Amino acid sequence: MMIIMKANATPQEVDTVIASIKSAGLNVHLSQGVEATIIGAIGETHNIPLERFESLEGVDLVQRITQPYKLASRQFHPENSVFNIDGFTVGGDEVAVIAGPCSVESRNQIIETAIAVKEAGASALRGGVFKPRTSPYAFQGLGEEGLEYLAEAREKTGLPIVVEIMSQVQLDMMVKYVDVFQIGARNMQNFNLLRAIGETQTAVLLKRGLSATIEELLMSAEYILSGGNQRVMLCERGIRTFETSTRNTTDINAIPVLKHHTHLPVILDPSHSTGFANYVAAVARAGIAAGADGLIVEVHPDPACAVSDGKQSLKPEAFAAMVKQVGQIAQIMGRSLATVGTQVHR
Amino acid sequence: MMIIMKANATPQEVDTVIASIKSAGLNVHLSQGVEATIIGAIGETHNIPLERFESLEGVDLVQRITQPYKLASRQFHPENSVFNIDGFTVGGDEVAVIAGPCSVESRNQIIETAIAVKEAGASALRGGVFKPRTSPYAFQGLGEEGLEYLAEAREKTGLPIVVEIMSQVQLDMMVKYVDVFQIGARNMQNFNLLRAIGETQTAVLLKRGLSATIEELLMSAEYILSGGNQRVMLCERGIRTFETSTRNTTDINAIPVLKHHTHLPVILDPSHSTGFANYVAAVARAGIAAGADGLIVEVHPDPACAVSDGKQSLKPEAFAAMVKQVGQIAQIMGRSLATVGTQVHR
Amino acid sequence: MMIIMKANATPQEVDTVIASIKSAGLNVHLSQGVEATIIGAIGETHNIPLERFESLEGVDLVQRITQPYKLASRQFHPENSVFNIDGFTVGGDEVAVIAGPCSVESRNQIIETAIAVKEAGASALRGGVFKPRTSPYAFQGLGEEGLEYLAEAREKTGLPIVVEIMSQVQLDMMVKYVDVFQIGARNMQNFNLLRAIGETQTAVLLKRGLSATIEELLMSAEYILSGGNQRVMLCERGIRTFETSTRNTTDINAIPVLKHHTHLPVILDPSHSTGFANYVAAVARAGIAAGADGLIVEVHPDPACAVSDGKQSLKPEAFAAMVKQVGQIAQIMGRSLATVGTQVHR
Amino acid sequence: MMIIMKANATPQEVDTVIASIKSAGLNVHLSQGVEATIIGAIGETHNIPLERFESLEGVDLVQRITQPYKLASRQFHPENSVFNIDGFTVGGDEVAVIAGPCSVESRNQIIETAIAVKEAGASALRGGVFKPRTSPYAFQGLGEEGLEYLAEAREKTGLPIVVEIMSQVQLDMMVKYVDVFQIGARNMQNFNLLRAIGETQTAVLLKRGLSATIEELLMSAEYILSGGNQRVMLCERGIRTFETSTRNTTDINAIPVLKHHTHLPVILDPSHSTGFANYVAAVARAGIAAGADGLIVEVHPDPACAVSDGKQSLKPEAFAAMVKQVGQIAQIMGRSLATVGTQVHR
Repeated sequence: MMIIMKANATPQEVDTVIASIKSAGLNVHLSQGVEATIIGAIGETHNIPLERFESLEGVDLVQRITQPYKLASRQFHPENSVFNIDGFTVGGDEVAVIAGPCSVESRNQIIETAIAVKEAGASALRGGVFKPRTSPYAFQGLGEEGLEYLAEAREKTGLPIVVEIMSQVQLDMMVKYVDVFQIGARNMQNFNLLRAIGETQTAVLLKRGLSATIEELLMSAEYILSGGNQRVMLCERGIRTFETSTRNTTDINAIPVLKHHTHLPVILDPSHSTGFANYVAAVARAGIAAGADGLIVEVHPDPACAVSDGKQSLKPEAFAAMVKQVGQIAQIMGRSLATVGTQVHR
Repeated sequence: MMIIMKANATPQEVDTVIASIKSAGLNVHLSQGVEATIIGAIGETHNIPLERFESLEGVDLVQRITQPYKLASRQFHPENSVFNIDGFTVGGDEVAVIAGPCSVESRNQIIETAIAVKEAGASALRGGVFKPRTSPYAFQGLGEEGLEYLAEAREKTGLPIVVEIMSQVQLDMMVKYVDVFQIGARNMQNFNLLRAIGETQTAVLLKRGLSATIEELLMSAEYILSGGNQRVMLCERGIRTFETSTRNTTDINAIPVLKHHTHLPVILDPSHSTGFANYVAAVARAGIAAGADGLIVEVHPDPACAVSDGKQSLKPEAFAAMVKQVGQIAQIMGRSLATVGTQVHR
Repeated sequence: MMIIMKANATPQEVDTVIASIKSAGLNVHLSQGVEATIIGAIGETHNIPLERFESLEGVDLVQRITQPYKLASRQFHPENSVFNIDGFTVGGDEVAVIAGPCSVESRNQIIETAIAVKEAGASALRGGVFKPRTSPYAFQGLGEEGLEYLAEAREKTGLPIVVEIMSQVQLDMMVKYVDVFQIGARNMQNFNLLRAIGETQTAVLLKRGLSATIEELLMSAEYILSGGNQRVMLCERGIRTFETSTRNTTDINAIPVLKHHTHLPVILDPSHSTGFANYVAAVARAGIAAGADGLIVEVHPDPACAVSDGKQSLKPEAFAAMVKQVGQIAQIMGRSLATVGTQVHR
Repeated sequence: MMIIMKANATPQEVDTVIASIKSAGLNVHLSQGVEATIIGAIGETHNIPLERFESLEGVDLVQRITQPYKLASRQFHPENSVFNIDGFTVGGDEVAVIAGPCSVESRNQIIETAIAVKEAGASALRGGVFKPRTSPYAFQGLGEEGLEYLAEAREKTGLPIVVEIMSQVQLDMMVKYVDVFQIGARNMQNFNLLRAIGETQTAVLLKRGLSATIEELLMSAEYILSGGNQRVMLCERGIRTFETSTRNTTDINAIPVLKHHTHLPVILDPSHSTGFANYVAAVARAGIAAGADGLIVEVHPDPACAVSDGKQSLKPEAFAAMVKQVGQIAQIMGRSLATVGTQVHR
């Protein structure tokens, strides 16, 4: 960390900064130039907030040289994290395709969808049972009943299940059912929830917030990793910009940027990042071509009747076509689609 | 709500939409024009999500005519909501000034600050005891110990206390201490928390999310109102944009827009919306000139030593100067600063 | 176009709107519902601004049903526009790769680069001779001297040349040299320039503005098309968002969205849309996988010595590797790289 | 300027950076710390682009300590620039109110408006004769005929006239008529136009681009100032964000930020920054309370019939009410409304 002093900073102000650095357990490197005095703070700086020094008198600017996270950083862990999700691996050569409806609506709906996405090549099943809805009047999910249906769908297909958790009060109940906790965009900085999940051993799909920077996403991952839970996947799901022709703007840059800065697997959600079923396949292909480790896609047997997100849900046939294209792109990238189990138990 | 069909929609598709409207308990008004068929859905539409119709076959566009919220709407409640916060009123002629440190750091710090802001003209005291921190390694707050110090500061000054709640698991403990729950920007769409707060009778300061639209802020208020808690203040605290010379961009437009659409009081937080102490007074004056019902401002006796947000915290003297200017602007707006109690009990 | 009246609009206000629609040469379709009166304006509405009706008394909302552009629309021209650029075609099966330095710096530099990119598989050569620079103190380009070097490079390689025009005063001189006019992001809404270019028969690469919507990009294309110049390529080059880890945010969604709404070819500029050489190949692959018709990429023989944009420029070797990957993705998309001429004349 | 080397930078890379700094005419200050080598580049760095060093091998980050502009900087010119605009001064104690229609539509319209705004307290008249329109099919302005009407309106009222210039080809004709050139948001980085205007002695109102940072606005001012034209006013007119309830987001922070960084006067345009007539007065008051030196406001005798921007135009009565409120706020800020001439010559 470098602290750049104002041109007119006094020697006393410089001394105060130096004392402050030392009291943070860091070493000091002082460089008094003609134009500016620069004070280096050297040591384990990732856990020191910039603001500790920014508000000291005479300080012009505080600049990090190293990243404000450690466990999530590729510097700390140069190799890709590759880990198992109940039947397949993520982060290595296999490309994961997580698919399913936005909400679990009924036993039939989720089982039918599970079988369809399994047959089309999906490697995991998604489905929400608690739904974060903008309106208090909208459908809020089936709760534990939905988890039971998901468990049954898993049994029939062998697909591990990915379910969103919205609050730490849901944790004890959900941990018994789910293979992967999804943390939604609106909860990316629900730090209490991140800590709670960090103390479990359940894998996590951490979605980027609507207006979260890539660095903030990595800081949120750090919360989970620092609790001891190492199986964290990061998910780009579109950011909020001025453009209104799509629901969100897919930040495709985030894929190579994340792969550069972190060892954690990166998943793309082209359903939320576009918001329209007819743009999903193009963006899914783009994601794999850009180096993503997998996809999470909304699929519904009858999108027009979905209680939520119907507009962006693929029908099973369209999903199957997409998987095929994605598989071809994966091959060019030297990878292949993850496969799970062998046969559907109808 | 109006559903505009695609130019080539079939009669069957139109019929399906009509049936769907009816099954939602709404009436239908059909208008078959030369260019387009438009189907009006009439009735209590605020609690029907657009997506219910958007994914039906043949639908081009669904457009709301009325707002997706009701209890928060000025149409439903034309008069300003004016309510009491333990000694002063908000939403009427009095302009509230809530002030205090980002974090409660010690008994001395909070009591000293409380006395200083009271003497400078503040009408309530803020202070965080659970801090949402981007980094897992940063100071996370004093917890219940901090609440006890705040209660003591209240006793000495008569100032009601405003404290951020981060999770519904903190509710039972906090409700015994606080006069106003603050819901932070990162929790604006923590719907479980909104519901839980809606079931209390404690007043609420609901902060707009970093990238939340004004409509989404009102939808979140609707969650609280629909639980029965009517004392909700809305807080503009800056939005995230491309501009980097300030921490956030103060959306000053939001003040007249909110006053137009809702009866709820509107508070401005110029500390977070600018991020720099030397811009706070200018933006505070602007807020009151634009019609805001109050301010929430970070004040710290020694900003350089604050554990968080020092850069944007005013010293007590600067705060006192700001309050004076704000009082003059309030007068031009036909209002006056709220006053609480009479004398400090040191 | 639909005009939705306020709930309390008077019959006189409705009549005024109707008269206003008629005076615009449009037909009227009136639908008086219980909740709202909706007035359809039917006919050639693409050339009527919404604002014509928005400010009339009693009007709540004006909504387009059809697009505000016509010549650029796929509705008007369902087939892809495929046109010739001096040796190859764009918009059809061939994938164009335009490459070269940000600025023409010297005769040697541009000829050396032209040969290198030609050998690596480029189909056109880019190079700026007038540079839009944020700072008045920065290098502003070689002017006509640069055009002569570009022409010489074209002669040696057979590659057509793509050069940015910044003002209509440069038109007469430039039109003698260039094969494709590039209109830069900052000039996307320089309407005088668009009109002037529309009256030439030189092909155009129109870049999307930093904060232009996709609809605005298409409106700017309409300016050129309406002048009679049909050879317009649209270029996504990244938009400005809150994310700072890359120079811009590549709006990959824009590719399928543009292909859906327009028949014009769509080119991606991964150099500007990322800003870092080491992210260019990933995003280039993503663009072709998403359906783009081509790429424009900055290549410099010695990026560290480039007078501009060195950070995002590829070395010829890295460019060659990128072209190879892009060619494989193109094949999966049923396309192939465009090839120009046969042999380099050194 | 500081160049921070990567942790693994070689001595040769450090030497190359040092040589590059020296060849730019700057002095070198080398600081070799344990964690990082930092190289200071000292001297006239405002005219050296960062990119000169960013693409050198081994460089991690280049950070400016001083600003990339000089003539516009308050460091270079600590006192406010106060200058005359044909009858009043801007930048000092007087608050300028520029008012008039978006477009000059007819002789009657502009003269009627000029008289009305003069009587309501305006200090200058605005009116467009060349209009930057998104659609090629929209009204494009009256051209020189409009300038003649504006000149006549000036004669009758004594109000100086502010007119937008869109291209340097319009310069010779316009310079004979106008008192203040307005450079519109879309032309803020039309560097050829900025240079051309910089060579005139006509005052300038430079509007911030839709997505331009404050630093970029100041760089564009630097273009004009470096040409020798010192009478430059900066205009905040709203930026493009995700919020859709207003046309743009007024960046009220920009006012104190600009006043901090530059000596140039700062004007607010609440008409474009909100887009709705009923929000204009609130935001105008906010602007003056935040320290703006003036306002530019759209006024039309019959907004419903305006050919452009009717929705955001005030009627003369509403404008008069706004001026009165703004005058009261100005007084609190220790200022007063600028007054021009004495009597209207009808």
